[in-house]
Amino acid sequence: MNNTKQKKRILTGDRPTGPLHLGHFIGTLKNRVRLQSEYDCYFIIADLHTLTTSPSKDNIKKLDQNIKDLILDYLSVGIDPKKSVIYRQSLVPEVVYLSLLFSMLTTVARCQRVPSLKEVMHDLHIKKPSLGLLTYPVLQAADILMVKGDLVPVGKDQESHIELTREIAKTFNRLYGEVFPIPKALIGEGGILPGTDGQSKMSKSIGNCIYLSDDAFTVEKKVMSMYTDPNRIKATDPGKVEGNPVFVYLDAFGKDKEKIKDYKDRYQKGTVGDVEVKKYLISVLDSFLSPIRKKRAIYEKNPALIEKILKEGTKKARLEAKKVLNEALLAMGLDPSFPSLG
Amino acid sequence: MNNTKQKKRILTGDRPTGPLHLGHFIGTLKNRVRLQSEYDCYFIIADLHTLTTSPSKDNIKKLDQNIKDLILDYLSVGIDPKKSVIYRQSLVPEVVYLSLLFSMLTTVARCQRVPSLKEVMHDLHIKKPSLGLLTYPVLQAADILMVKGDLVPVGKDQESHIELTREIAKTFNRLYGEVFPIPKALIGEGGILPGTDGQSKMSKSIGNCIYLSDDAFTVEKKVMSMYTDPNRIKATDPGKVEGNPVFVYLDAFGKDKEKIKDYKDRYQKGTVGDVEVKKYLISVLDSFLSPIRKKRAIYEKNPALIEKILKEGTKKARLEAKKVLNEALLAMGLDPSFPSLG
Repeated sequence: MNNTKQKKRILTGDRPTGPLHLGHFIGTLKNRVRLQSEYDCYFIIADLHTLTTSPSKDNIKKLDQNIKDLILDYLSVGIDPKKSVIYRQSLVPEVVYLSLLFSMLTTVARCQRVPSLKEVMHDLHIKKPSLGLLTYPVLQAADILMVKGDLVPVGKDQESHIELTREIAKTFNRLYGEVFPIPKALIGEGGILPGTDGQSKMSKSIGNCIYLSDDAFTVEKKVMSMYTDPNRIKATDPGKVEGNPVFVYLDAFGKDKEKIKDYKDRYQKGTVGDVEVKKYLISVLDSFLSPIRKKRAIYEKNPALIEKILKEGTKKARLEAKKVLNEALLAMGLDPSFPSLG
Repeated sequence: MNNTKQKKRILTGDRPTGPLHLGHFIGTLKNRVRLQSEYDCYFIIADLHTLTTSPSKDNIKKLDQNIKDLILDYLSVGIDPKKSVIYRQSLVPEVVYLSLLFSMLTTVARCQRVPSLKEVMHDLHIKKPSLGLLTYPVLQAADILMVKGDLVPVGKDQESHIELTREIAKTFNRLYGEVFPIPKALIGEGGILPGTDGQSKMSKSIGNCIYLSDDAFTVEKKVMSMYTDPNRIKATDPGKVEGNPVFVYLDAFGKDKEKIKDYKDRYQKGTVGDVEVKKYLISVLDSFLSPIRKKRAIYEKNPALIEKILKEGTKKARLEAKKVLNEALLAMGLDPSFPSLG
């Protein structure tokens, strides 16, 4: 079916709700940078999805800036627009059309059972979801299938996130003929990074993040006030290393594994102070963030390039979307003539 | 707001599920023909709406023919493509996009309370509605607002059918600025015509219809086997006129009111047979249908003209749709650049 495709295709991306942080890097970005040489990667900036929970004008106003920041984050960590496609969802209207067609093939009850919908409603205290929110997993299926995505990177225990997409692809193919691949989850190696406050994960709304775009001074300040082992009062108390975010970060970003092991031993014995370990973490994060900052600075000076990257990526995605939507319409027996109309 | 519009605009139309019958004529078509000189009329052939209950390939296969038949029905009763716009919904993808935006402004619970949704589910014995079916009143709101419809013709007691559209228009205007009119229901003068079997209304699924496209022989056969007064055994029995479909049809289509009154009197007294009244109804329907048949025959010989009418109408509707969608996106603060992209 996908004979013309050299590489398997990946669809993944982000809702443009704010700058990305170290947690995103460990969870997904690191993985994406690696994947883009092996796979044909489409990175979706899913701005329509932000409307499902926040359709207010104030929130929409932030989208343009958030999108620019997101692309800067992508480029600065090494996502390469020569290898991969970065595109804005709302500028690919074909995906919305495909989503409507898919909505005919999914029951309301099935959508209501999607686990991530329940999570969002719980996290954002939404009692009465909008129809858009209920529709979001179907729109997501359209995002993935619109580029005939073969693989969708997901975290551990997140395989269910693409189950509805697989069901829709199967139903479509059974009713109308083989058009779509049945996408598979690509379980990433990435882990979850705790917040600077020791909470289980970094979250913008909690305010416990170190952003990829933070300058050295900000990082220093955030690390110096980081949560460590709450039971350790003085530097001579034996401290806990497991679940201690300072050491989790060192494991995630430090290169000198021996030195880290030494710090861990001394921390557990009570022969090193929090401040010394934190200063080491600051230097480790600085080594990690320095090349990222350099790359960002280059792109920041060239906003026209950012625009061009998004425009070209969106154009590529849209061409693909038109092709696939036409194929879907033809399979269904519907007139696919509208893209050339008007 | 609509200063540039000379006339108030009407949006109405049909799902292309089969040929139209006398009940449609009395209920809506007669009214539409009259409205098109006074208003700027958009007649939507709502093919996407047929998918909400019947997404099967077999059903989709019938759409093209059903659409041609529907246009023939429209033209033959006097809908004038020089005055009004006839267009195919699925070829105006902008409406789907607008529908998605509207879905962010409507709760699932609100959609579930739409009375016509409950009716459809009841009539078609649908236990588990598709997401598309739940979405249909929102797509309908997009149909109406996409052309900034001021008025929507509805039958008596159907005002609730456009209540959700009014709510969505108000919510949108409040959140993003005045873009949409708040459409009003235009209560038609049309009534409901009973079926030939005496059931309360004509319905294709029951098979009790006289179609606008039926030839004289078919009409004769259908009228001769029509339900009348079941308690009347012989022509000398006094018969009931009220609710007797033969007389309802005579009232609806007959011009000679005195002659009809005379038949009614004689029927009630038992001085005229069913056959005689039915023969008179056949002649009345023949006078009504003859000019319709003549017009249809002219258009039937010219399928290219039918195609042209639909193509031009759809082009007009799409231009309007693009304009209004752009206006909506700009009001929201979203990038409306995609129509010119690619």
